[in-house]
This record gives sequence, C-alpha cells and structure tokens, in this order.
Amino acid sequence: MKYADSGVNIDTAVRALARAKDAVRSTWDERVRSDVGSFGGLYQPGPGEPLLVASVDGVGTKVMVAHRMGRYDTVGQDLVNHCVDDILVQGAEPMFFLDYFATATLTEDVLPAVIEGFARGCRENGCALLGGETAEMPGVYREKEFDLAGTIVGRVRAEEVIDGRAIAAGDQVWGLPSTGLHTNGYSLARKVLFETAGYDVHDTPEELGGVSVGDALLAVHKSYLGDLRAIWKAHGRGAVHGLAHITGGGFVDNIPRVVPAGLCVQVDVTAWEVPALFRLIGERGSVGREEMYRVFNMGIGLVVVADPSVDLGAMPGLGAVELGTVTEGEDAVHLQF
Amino acid sequence: MKYADSGVNIDTAVRALARAKDAVRSTWDERVRSDVGSFGGLYQPGPGEPLLVASVDGVGTKVMVAHRMGRYDTVGQDLVNHCVDDILVQGAEPMFFLDYFATATLTEDVLPAVIEGFARGCRENGCALLGGETAEMPGVYREKEFDLAGTIVGRVRAEEVIDGRAIAAGDQVWGLPSTGLHTNGYSLARKVLFETAGYDVHDTPEELGGVSVGDALLAVHKSYLGDLRAIWKAHGRGAVHGLAHITGGGFVDNIPRVVPAGLCVQVDVTAWEVPALFRLIGERGSVGREEMYRVFNMGIGLVVVADPSVDLGAMPGLGAVELGTVTEGEDAVHLQF
Repeated sequence: MKYADSGVNIDTAVRALARAKDAVRSTWDERVRSDVGSFGGLYQPGPGEPLLVASVDGVGTKVMVAHRMGRYDTVGQDLVNHCVDDILVQGAEPMFFLDYFATATLTEDVLPAVIEGFARGCRENGCALLGGETAEMPGVYREKEFDLAGTIVGRVRAEEVIDGRAIAAGDQVWGLPSTGLHTNGYSLARKVLFETAGYDVHDTPEELGGVSVGDALLAVHKSYLGDLRAIWKAHGRGAVHGLAHITGGGFVDNIPRVVPAGLCVQVDVTAWEVPALFRLIGERGSVGREEMYRVFNMGIGLVVVADPSVDLGAMPGLGAVELGTVTEGEDAVHLQF
Repeated sequence: MKYADSGVNIDTAVRALARAKDAVRSTWDERVRSDVGSFGGLYQPGPGEPLLVASVDGVGTKVMVAHRMGRYDTVGQDLVNHCVDDILVQGAEPMFFLDYFATATLTEDVLPAVIEGFARGCRENGCALLGGETAEMPGVYREKEFDLAGTIVGRVRAEEVIDGRAIAAGDQVWGLPSTGLHTNGYSLARKVLFETAGYDVHDTPEELGGVSVGDALLAVHKSYLGDLRAIWKAHGRGAVHGLAHITGGGFVDNIPRVVPAGLCVQVDVTAWEVPALFRLIGERGSVGREEMYRVFNMGIGLVVVADPSVDLGAMPGLGAVELGTVTEGEDAVHLQF
C-alpha cells in the first residue's frame, strides 16, 4: 500500500503549490529572509533587528482518531509542539501561538477541551496563546468532525539562524527519538489499522504490548525545545549545523530541506529500533520500506547535524542515536537499509 | 428568522469560550498586552520594543458561495483584508500573513486560485505571504468543500496603540462604507437567499439591480488600511480615539469591545442608506431589525471614533458617514432606529 492509496495525493499538492510559488514570491520584499519550502518563514522587520520566524500547520487526520476516542484535550498540544519544532529547526524560540478551530456543530464540551490542549502545549513551551478563532460550518465539515490549524511566531537573532549552510562533510548526524507518529501519516495509518487490519481504536494488538491502537496513535507530538536548549547550553549554539523536523514527507523529503548542494546526509536505518506501531503499520499494510520512510518518522522526530567534536550520545536524557555522517554526494539524503 | 436558525449558535460558542478563558490566560506573562476579546492580540517581546499585533480568522461559509460560483481567487483576498482590518483597529500596520487551506480532495485548479487571492490581498496591503499549509482530509470535509484560515502579524509602537481608552464624551462617531457582507453572516444569508427565497447564485433579483446573488455575496471584504493611513496623515495619529471592525456580532457586539465603561456610542442607523443586499436578506428572511444589526455590517464596515475637531466627512474618497456622538451612559452602544 502507498500513501496515495489512503486518499492523500502528495504529488497533486506538490504540482499545485509549484504553480502558486510565483504568486507567493510576488508579495515579498527584502524583509522576507527565507524561500518557499523552509520549515518556518523568516521575516526581519528592520535592519539589525532579530528575525521573526513563523509557521502554520494542522494535525491532519489525527483529529479523526481523537474524535473516535472521544479525547479532545491532546490534539491542541500536538499542534503547538509541531509548530514549536518547525521554527526550532531554524534556531527560533517561540513567542506566541494562535489557533483556529472549526467544526460542523459546536458543542459545549469539545471546544474547551481542545483549547485546554492548546494551553497546555503553550505553557510547556513558554509560549503565549495570544488569539484564536472558532467557526461552526455544518455545510463544510462532516457531522461531528472538526479541524484545527495553528500559527506560531518566534524569533531568533540574525547571526543565530540555523539554515543548514554550516553543514560540512564530516559532520555527525544524530537522531532524537519521537514519541509516536507525531502528526504525520495518519491517513495511511488509519486506512491500514482500521480498514485493512480491521482494528477498533480500543483494540490492544499483541504487537503494541498492551497499549490500545487509539492510545498509540494519540501519543503527543514531542517538542524538542528542551532538548535543543540543553544541547546549546552544553556545546554552544555553533555546534548545531543543521536541524530537520521529520514531518510530512518523512526522512526523504525533510532532510534535503536543509542540506547544501553537493552534500549527502547518510542515515543508517539499522541504528535504532523502529517502534512497534510503525512495524505494525508496515506489516499489516504491506507498505514498502522506502514508502514507510517517506511517510513516517519511524521513531526519529528530529535530525541534528552537528560538529564532529560533539557527542550527543553522551548527553543524559536525550536518547540521541548516531545515524551516520555527512559525505560529499549528489543526493541530499541516503538511507542505508 | 434568527442567526441560530441557520445552524450557527453564537451563544454556545460564547459559553464554551467563557469556560476556556482561564486556560488561555494561564499561558500569559507580562509580554501579553491585551485581554481576551480584543480584535488582535498584543505582544511586546521586550521592554520598550514595538508591540506585535496578531489575529487569526476564517471567512466562514463564504467559502461555500465561492464553491457554488466556481470562483476561487477572491476568498483569499477576503481573508487577508479581514485580518488586516482586525489589527488595524488597534493601530497596527501589517507585516506578514500565513494561510491554511484544507479540503476533502485536492485538485490542481482550486489551490493555485486560492493562493492567488491570498497573494493579491497581501500585495495590496504591503504584507508578505510568509507561509502556508495545505491539507487533504476527505474524512473531515464534505465532498468538494474547503476551508481557509489565516493569521496576520503586524506591529505598532507602544505609544500608538489604539484601544479605545482615548474615547471621551463628545467624540464624533463615523462610519466607513463596507463593500458588502464582508465575511460575516453567510450562514444566515445563504439560508435566506438559497433556501427561503429559493435563489440560485446566478439569479439576478430586481432588488440587486442586475447583479447576481453570487456576485453580490462574493464582493471582496474591504481593507481600511489606505483609509486609515489617509486619516492619520491628514489629522495625526491622536485624532483617532477608537476603531471597531464590524465583523461577527455586527454593531451590537463589536463596538462595545473598544468603548470604556460609562460611555455610550450613539449610532443613528438612518444616517446612511442600507445597501440592497442587506435589505433583500432582511425582507426575504423576515429577519428582525435588531438581529440584522447584530449579524451584519449593514453597509458600515468600520466605525471610527474621532476627536470632535476632525471632519472625516470632508475627506474625499472616504465616504465617511456621521453616525452620532459619544455620550455618557451605561450601554456601550445605542442604535437609534
């Protein structure tokens, strides 16, 4: 099975967005300091000022799992953490977050729970929940379904922006563990687990060691803000040459977003044990190996390219996995199976 | 007919949001300089710095009219202008905007048109389209339907924030004309025009003077940025004491958001001619007079409370209507029918 079989056609999105690129760039002036396709947009209000870094995202069809579990207070936290990670990979610390919540019919219980999730995520990241919008649109959303979108704004000093330009051959590549699927690949995961395998959210397949399918799928997206602060504190800001958040597009599409031309990030996929949930999806859905690493994070939510003098593996609490090194080469990323 | 009859229950939203207020405030520290319910959130990154002003919004079920008309390149512009106005009323100039577009099934034609609308809105307001997210969620959205959300970030110097505190008895109240329904009241408008009255989007009722129902409904939300710049240039920043964007909640809910306790904004609703589209909705739907002014902008998209020495009516191109004055009183707004 492939991602497109689950009703999500990445290629159509890519072609449509390619057509829109010129329109997007037509709105830019010298204050925009990033290009299309970066994890967060960089904006410098005036010369010499710190850069504002902003990113918008959703949690995909993880909202449908939340709905089926009747658990509404974690998806907001997922979204905040996702957004925090998207600007963190450019070196930014979060300032504030704004949420959008839309549903077919508003009920008094779901919205406060969703907002509590946003608030928890914001508190844990020291980020203000500065605004929000709620919409009730029965003609647009299917009955009882809802969607979330969130926008984060943070900032970073111009000389501390991380954009991968510092990456060099010989750098060490590390992976930091994810807590689960985070917020990507849910359409494929749901199709495989609920349709092909026929599980209910409350089923506890042996492979998951007593955890229900729903609980495993709703594990909260990890914020790597604390991990990065610890790394920067221990080794200095300059030790981190590049960061990739492994979101939609998995290893294959996200790592190249930060790797300079002519360099290749080597990833030894045997370096860590792929968590049970990913293995279950791959097996039950007969999903090809390459497809798995294109859709899912496979247990590694953040890739850190660091100066070779730095040993992240020795830092307690980080769980950093040595994935490989940076070499010269035409492909920005190479997965060694 | 009332707004609640169209499937949108404002009271449920208000109660649910009241429950969530404490959670929202739990994420704040001294950098947050606005309270719940302001048009945009105010955030001061550091002492003495300009304030960032941010707001998130959607265009409601105006997206369904766009879909029925097969016209996808204006709703993005609506959303940008709506967001620009939401931070303008606090004195902020826009810097950048991020969009979220989600739909049941992505097609190659709709998304580029929507983004072109965002880009046009951004260019016209000197605002960068800094980022965006696209999601395909067939299980969440009804077939062929889509939704938009957008977040704007601008800024204003601390001493130039407009929050209504400068409003005093004797101030003059002005209205600037809207271009149509802007982005509010579409669920009620659609129910009245398409269900009760039985119009098709392409029908041209005599009352609309040759304009189709769909064209009238899709008239683009006006950005008041140019008008305000002209007012500030002619009369100085201090001449404007308060601004209210007449969005969801109409005159009744939006004007009180900026009026200090003990003062009352008098609005003589006979001071301007209500445009034909509003009259058509009110008549065909037998919508009560008070309900109309609670749901729709009725032809006035921005209310300007200004120093009595300033004559906005004399400024060419503004179309400013004299609505009344500010008096002492318990009700923040009083509509004189």
